[in-house]
Amino acid sequence: MLSHIKIVLVETTHPGNIGAVARAMKNMDMANLWLVAPKTFPSADATSRASGADDVLAKATVCASLPEAIADCQLVIGASARGRTISWPEMTPRQCAEQVVLGEDSAKQKVAIIFGRENSGLKNHELDLCHFLLRIPCNSQYSSLNIAAAVQVVCYELFVAAGADAPRLVGDKDKVPKATAQQMESFYAHLHQALMDIGFMHPDKSKSIMRRLRRIYNRIQLDTKELDILRGILRMSQDNQSSK
Amino acid sequence: MLSHIKIVLVETTHPGNIGAVARAMKNMDMANLWLVAPKTFPSADATSRASGADDVLAKATVCASLPEAIADCQLVIGASARGRTISWPEMTPRQCAEQVVLGEDSAKQKVAIIFGRENSGLKNHELDLCHFLLRIPCNSQYSSLNIAAAVQVVCYELFVAAGADAPRLVGDKDKVPKATAQQMESFYAHLHQALMDIGFMHPDKSKSIMRRLRRIYNRIQLDTKELDILRGILRMSQDNQSSK
Repeated sequence: MLSHIKIVLVETTHPGNIGAVARAMKNMDMANLWLVAPKTFPSADATSRASGADDVLAKATVCASLPEAIADCQLVIGASARGRTISWPEMTPRQCAEQVVLGEDSAKQKVAIIFGRENSGLKNHELDLCHFLLRIPCNSQYSSLNIAAAVQVVCYELFVAAGADAPRLVGDKDKVPKATAQQMESFYAHLHQALMDIGFMHPDKSKSIMRRLRRIYNRIQLDTKELDILRGILRMSQDNQSSK
Repeated sequence: MLSHIKIVLVETTHPGNIGAVARAMKNMDMANLWLVAPKTFPSADATSRASGADDVLAKATVCASLPEAIADCQLVIGASARGRTISWPEMTPRQCAEQVVLGEDSAKQKVAIIFGRENSGLKNHELDLCHFLLRIPCNSQYSSLNIAAAVQVVCYELFVAAGADAPRLVGDKDKVPKATAQQMESFYAHLHQALMDIGFMHPDKSKSIMRRLRRIYNRIQLDTKELDILRGILRMSQDNQSSK
């Protein structure tokens, strides 16, 4: 689904970070990783931090230069935490996802998203190759994300835009139906009676108390199973009263 | 700005991950970190991975139990990658940010967002303490994010929501405060006892019944006035029992 997007890491120093990037990508269903002149790769550190995403590492393409990595791409985006003296056109990860995943040309173009060195990011001549500069919103006093954390945020936005985010409520299919208004009315009548039985209801206050209780239980949107439990409690309370 | 939100890590195994979490938080201008029974802390690994966020580590609160960490919180959210047999109410990081940063009660409530163990996440009895289960949209075939990556995504959404500057809903200044986790725990203890008194609880079933009742009342987010009413009912029921 996101196979037209490649993640490109430039001169990464710590192999552990390459592994963590592979994991972050696979978590978001992405697998197209390019490594430009990594300091150490392959590496046991990378594999260990990949933690099950070693298939992404195994398929990664190592190359010598950035132009080589992005040669077949129509849209090139460079991540940067630093402000630049020359102002590049910028986008946030969300805008990036909108354009890359949902945009008009998204189906037809190959995209590269480039992440620079851990300490110094991308150089200006590398940003010259980019159409956009990608900036992750963050604390201006402490703006350097770990490279794998930055990749995680960007890939997450891509994944969400791709719609895999569609609310997948767990156990939706065998969900217990919500109680109907009628069932709730019988519950309130029952609750009222049970509260009378234990002496909680003073006739002059019962209306306002019942109103408050309705606000509580209406807000909750009880399902029928939950309603059964609550009514079971009321019945048991009443049985106890009548055996007094 | 996000100081009403604490990040709680439960029994983290690798100190490096604690450091990476501190960095992820500080990147998003968050500083309130709680550690429940970390395996190793403080640690050189944590400080090294924090990479300049050691002030967040230094201020982190270490405690022995999860209830202690969330005692003062009105809204408790537990992150989970696994599906659960009982379906908790779920939210995505974006929905979480909308509610926690932009929601009606956001200014007045303390919020805990809990992340479980690296290998096994949160246990069911820990999720019992949560109002919502937070699920990060991801590849269903490879759904376990590194804990710092998960914190990064969630804090990023919180930061983006906080910057969105959306109009805050008005008219909530004289609203009754929500019950804290500690107040809810006393309520559950009281409810359990009252249900024992009327004979509703069979010892072998009491755990699953209490779990269902927790799901009902956690979903509701009771305010303190409502809690008073419910506890009044429990007390009256018990007085009636003892007068039998």
